[in-house]
Amino acid sequence: MADVLPIGPLTRAAFAPFGEVLETDGAERRIINEGTTERFHALACAEAERGGKVIINLFRGQPRPFPYEIAMMERHPLGSQAFFPIDNRPWLVVVAKDEDGRPGLPQAFLAGGRQGVNFHANVWHHPLIAIDEVSDFLVVDREGEGDNLEEADYPSVFRIERDNW
Amino acid sequence: MADVLPIGPLTRAAFAPFGEVLETDGAERRIINEGTTERFHALACAEAERGGKVIINLFRGQPRPFPYEIAMMERHPLGSQAFFPIDNRPWLVVVAKDEDGRPGLPQAFLAGGRQGVNFHANVWHHPLIAIDEVSDFLVVDREGEGDNLEEADYPSVFRIERDNW
Repeated sequence: MADVLPIGPLTRAAFAPFGEVLETDGAERRIINEGTTERFHALACAEAERGGKVIINLFRGQPRPFPYEIAMMERHPLGSQAFFPIDNRPWLVVVAKDEDGRPGLPQAFLAGGRQGVNFHANVWHHPLIAIDEVSDFLVVDREGEGDNLEEADYPSVFRIERDNW
Repeated sequence: MADVLPIGPLTRAAFAPFGEVLETDGAERRIINEGTTERFHALACAEAERGGKVIINLFRGQPRPFPYEIAMMERHPLGSQAFFPIDNRPWLVVVAKDEDGRPGLPQAFLAGGRQGVNFHANVWHHPLIAIDEVSDFLVVDREGEGDNLEEADYPSVFRIERDNW
């Protein structure tokens, strides 16, 4: 029987080892455009090593079936990768610390519909996990020379139960 | 009486002199994550000159009153600036070609709620124009040394009429 993963709320403090949470709460706030706009400033900084460029993309994720089995992780050694939902729908973020070049125990977070994340370069994370419906995300990551994708299978899977959050 | 600006639909072709339209329609589409995700790839590339960094922000725009008067424009010489709405609500994009270091005639576009734009570096544009309600946007732009803001007033204003789109 697969280990069932606990799922916690996505907070800046809990996510700090992996990257930034993109949200207005707790952000540096600047008033600009003659008072008509609030700028929640520099929630994250994009990384693009070895001469890569920072690109802006849209991702459209199919909803995952639940219970969902976490069987692998991936990471991008040469650049950060940010996801921000544009459908105002909760989604799941699953990351892991590195253990001698392999992903450790997965840590799962429920992100709110107004919460994005920026995975730092080389942080193990599971591919996009949308919930219930097809969901679109704005994604900021790297394009350029070099191998920017590493994948690793777990020896045994971890399970995410529906509504275990 | 101020000149009333025509407002056109936001299309890649019409916007090409100013930057990119961020939308899935017409984008390069890659299937990733074992078929569970569509990646609409490299809709735009962020520019950050003179050692600047690419940063990710959230902007919260107050709705503008209509009729709205376009009295000035701004530009960022050292970096691009991308806006993507996260409330699925239409908004206005106003840009101008440069004429001897000053903004020329404003061109206004109605952007759909699933359309963003990336202003190229040094492109004259009006500050964020939200419509009807407070609207949030994900913004990708530059932080770093150097003066990255130039503003210019028009000698006389241009008018945007409500529902002239």
